[in-house]
Amino acid sequence: MRTQEMQMPCDILLLGTVVTMDSNNTIIENGAVAVIGENIAAVGPAGELQRHYKPTATLALPKGLVMPGLVNVHTHAAMSCMRGLADDLPLMTWLQEHIFPVEGNLNGEMVYHAALLSMVEMIKSGTTSFCDMYLFAGDVARAADRAGMRAWVGEVLYDFPSPNYGVLAAGFDYVEKMASDYRNHPLINITMDPHSVYTCVPDLLIALKEKALIHDCRYVIHLSENEDEVKTVKSRYGKTPVDHLEALGLLDERVIADHCVVLTADEIALLAARKVNVAHCPESNMKLASGVAPVPELLAAGVVVGLGTDGSASNNDVDLFAEMDMAAKLHKVHRLDPTVMSARQTLALATMGGARVLGAQQEIGSLEAGKKADIIVLDLDKPHLTPMYHVDSQLVYAAKGSDVTHSVINGKIVMRDRKLTGLDERKIMARVNEMSVALTGSR
Amino acid sequence: MRTQEMQMPCDILLLGTVVTMDSNNTIIENGAVAVIGENIAAVGPAGELQRHYKPTATLALPKGLVMPGLVNVHTHAAMSCMRGLADDLPLMTWLQEHIFPVEGNLNGEMVYHAALLSMVEMIKSGTTSFCDMYLFAGDVARAADRAGMRAWVGEVLYDFPSPNYGVLAAGFDYVEKMASDYRNHPLINITMDPHSVYTCVPDLLIALKEKALIHDCRYVIHLSENEDEVKTVKSRYGKTPVDHLEALGLLDERVIADHCVVLTADEIALLAARKVNVAHCPESNMKLASGVAPVPELLAAGVVVGLGTDGSASNNDVDLFAEMDMAAKLHKVHRLDPTVMSARQTLALATMGGARVLGAQQEIGSLEAGKKADIIVLDLDKPHLTPMYHVDSQLVYAAKGSDVTHSVINGKIVMRDRKLTGLDERKIMARVNEMSVALTGSR
Repeated sequence: MRTQEMQMPCDILLLGTVVTMDSNNTIIENGAVAVIGENIAAVGPAGELQRHYKPTATLALPKGLVMPGLVNVHTHAAMSCMRGLADDLPLMTWLQEHIFPVEGNLNGEMVYHAALLSMVEMIKSGTTSFCDMYLFAGDVARAADRAGMRAWVGEVLYDFPSPNYGVLAAGFDYVEKMASDYRNHPLINITMDPHSVYTCVPDLLIALKEKALIHDCRYVIHLSENEDEVKTVKSRYGKTPVDHLEALGLLDERVIADHCVVLTADEIALLAARKVNVAHCPESNMKLASGVAPVPELLAAGVVVGLGTDGSASNNDVDLFAEMDMAAKLHKVHRLDPTVMSARQTLALATMGGARVLGAQQEIGSLEAGKKADIIVLDLDKPHLTPMYHVDSQLVYAAKGSDVTHSVINGKIVMRDRKLTGLDERKIMARVNEMSVALTGSR
Repeated sequence: MRTQEMQMPCDILLLGTVVTMDSNNTIIENGAVAVIGENIAAVGPAGELQRHYKPTATLALPKGLVMPGLVNVHTHAAMSCMRGLADDLPLMTWLQEHIFPVEGNLNGEMVYHAALLSMVEMIKSGTTSFCDMYLFAGDVARAADRAGMRAWVGEVLYDFPSPNYGVLAAGFDYVEKMASDYRNHPLINITMDPHSVYTCVPDLLIALKEKALIHDCRYVIHLSENEDEVKTVKSRYGKTPVDHLEALGLLDERVIADHCVVLTADEIALLAARKVNVAHCPESNMKLASGVAPVPELLAAGVVVGLGTDGSASNNDVDLFAEMDMAAKLHKVHRLDPTVMSARQTLALATMGGARVLGAQQEIGSLEAGKKADIIVLDLDKPHLTPMYHVDSQLVYAAKGSDVTHSVINGKIVMRDRKLTGLDERKIMARVNEMSVALTGSR
C-alpha cells in the first residue's frame, strides 16, 4: 500500500498535452506544469504532479495543449492605430504620404493605448513576450507594465528630430531615463535602437552601441530589409549595410538585426561568426514586397533566428500563429522544396529561437523547471484541429491564435477562458477608435 | 406627416455595413439585406428596408459586416481526415507513402463524415459554396445536402482502378448515376472530373468532356500544378499539359483548371482566349512547394480566377480568410511589387471570381436583389479589427475565419452566433477522430 504523500502548495497547475520545446523536444501526453511564484516548479506526468502538488488554481481543458508562450522578436506595438490605414502601395508612398504624417500627430498617451491594443491582441493569440522598437517607448514600457507582459522595449533614434524627444541630444537623455526607470523591473528590459544604417550616421550607431554595453542590453536595428536599402547604403558608404556595421565594429551577440532579407553568402557567414541575432518577419516582408529572407541558410550557418510580426500597419496583425504558418509555407515555395522550414523548426523559431534572440534562453522559450512561468494553453477540441496526428504540424499549419484559451505570464494568469484578467479590452478598443479619428480625420 | 406604409413580410433581415461586391463595389454603411425564401429581395439602407420589411428573423450585431458568402473553388473536403498526417515531405513520398495508402482504406461512410467535418469548418470560416473533387463523390454530395451547403461535386476519374468504383467502366456508371440523382437539386451541381493530364489517357479526357456537354456541367481538372507534371506530360505527349488539352480540343468555358502554377505567356493567352476558368490555391502550392501561379498575369489577360484551399492534407485547413491574406502577400513578394493583388482584387477572387469560375455569377458572389441568399455576417467588434479605416483591407489582411458570426445559405440560417443550426459538430469530430485511428492506427 502507498504511503500518504505530503502535498506541496503551488500557485497554478496546468494540465494537458505538454509540449515542452526543451532540447529533447519532449512532449508529455497527460502532462502537467506546476507554477510557484514567477517560476515553473515542475514539468511531468499529470498523475505525478497532481499527487505532489496542491494548486491554488488549475488550468485544464478536456483537450488542452500546454506550451511555452510565443516570443515576438520584432514589433511596433503602437502601430495598431495605423492598421489598414494604407495598403498595397509602393513603400515610399506608403511611408511618406500615410505613415509618417500620422506618426507626426502621435503623443505618449496615444502610443500607450495603441500599444495596449497590440498587447491585448498578442495575449489573445498566444504571445507572452515581445521586443518593441518605437517612438514614445517609455509609454510602450508603461503599457507593457500595465498589461503584465514580458517586454524588451527601445526608443528608436535616428538623425532627424523625433516626434517624441525632439533633437537627438534629448533622445540620449530619454533612453538614459528609460534605462534608469526600468533597471530592476521584473518583466521589462530596455534596448538601444538605432532605426537603421540608412537613417543613422556612424556616430549615432556607435554612441548607441556604447550605451548598449554600459546598460548590458540588446542593440536592435532594422538591417538589409530590401534592395533599396542596400543600394542606398552602398552608394553612401561603399558597403552593404552588414559590411558597414562590421567596418564600424558593431556586430556582436548583442545585436538583433530585424528583417535581414537581402544578404550574400559572405554576409550570412559573417552574421554567424559575430553571433548576431536575426528577427525574421515574413508577413511584413511579403506585404511590403521586400523579399524573402534566407532563413534556411541563416539557420544552417548557425545564426540564431526568431519570429516577428513587425507592426500592424504592415501585416496587419500581431498573431504569431498566422506568422508561423506563413513562414513555413513561404520558404518551401521560395526554394521549391517542401522539406525546408519544417513545422518543428518553425515552432522552435517562435519559442526557443525568440528566447535566444533576446538573450533570455535561460528564462523563457521552453517549459522546464526553474524557468519563468510564461505558458499558454490551447483548446484542441475544435473542428479545424480534428483529427490530431502530429502536434507540431497541428500547431503550425492548423492552429489559430484564437485557439489559445489561457495565458500565464511570469506566474500570473493574464487570460482565462479567453477573458483578459487585467485589461479592459473594450475600453482600449474605444480609445483607439477615438484616436483613429483624431489621427486621420477618418471615422 | 408621413403616411403609414404597409410592411411586407420577409424571412430574414440582415443589418450592418453591407459590402455588396457588386460591379460598382457598393458599400452601404448602416445597410441591410432582406431575404425572402431562397433569394435576396432587397439590398439598401437599413432605415429604408426596416420600414419596408417585417422580418421573421433579424441578424444584426453592434458592429456587423454583411457580405456575400465566400466561394471555395477547389477542395477535397474528405481529406480533413488526413490533416497533418504527413507534412514537410517531398511530394512523391507524401503521396505514395502516406496519402495513397490511407485513401485505399477509405469508404463512403468515412468520406461522408470527413467531408462533413470540412463543411463545418467552411461554414465556421465564412464559406457558403465549394467545388469538390474526390473519391466517393456521391457521399460528398450527400454530406453537402445534409449540411445545406451549395456545392459543385465531382467523382475523380483516372486510368487506374478506384477505391470507390473499381474499374473505369463502373466509374462512368457512377457519374451517370450521380448526374441523375442530383439533376434537380436546389444546391448541388455535378461536375465531370478527370484527375489530370498525367493520370488520364486522352480517351478518358475526351469521354468526360462529352459527358460534361451532355449534362451541361463544369469539367474540373488539376492542370500544370508543378514542373514535374509539365516534364512528365511533355515527355509523354511532346506537349505541355495546356497544349495537350488544346490539341485534344478540350479547352473551353466549361473547364475549371486547378492550380495552373507553371504556365508560359502563350499558355496564359490561350487560357484567356478559350475562356478557361482557373482555381488558384496559394497555400497548397506553397506547402507542397509547387510554385507561384501567375495570377496577376492571368487576371491581366482576362482569365476568370477564383480562390481555393485544396484539401486539408496540404493546407492544413479550408479557411478562405487565411487564404486571401496569403494570396495577397504571396504575389507581392513574388513580384517584389506591393501594388499587385490589392485587397479589393483578392476579395473579388474569393467572391465574384469564384462565382464566375463556377458559372454561377447570376446566382451568387455578390449581394444583389434576385440573387440567391448566400450571406455571411462578421463581427468587427474585436481588438484585431480595431481601428477600421478601409473595409477591403480589414477583410483581407486582418479578419479571421473565426470572426464570421452568422451564415445564411440559400435563404436558410446555417450558423447563428457561431452555433451551427443543422449539424452536430461534436458528433462529426468524434466520428473523424475514430476514423483517424482506423485509417492509420494512430490515436
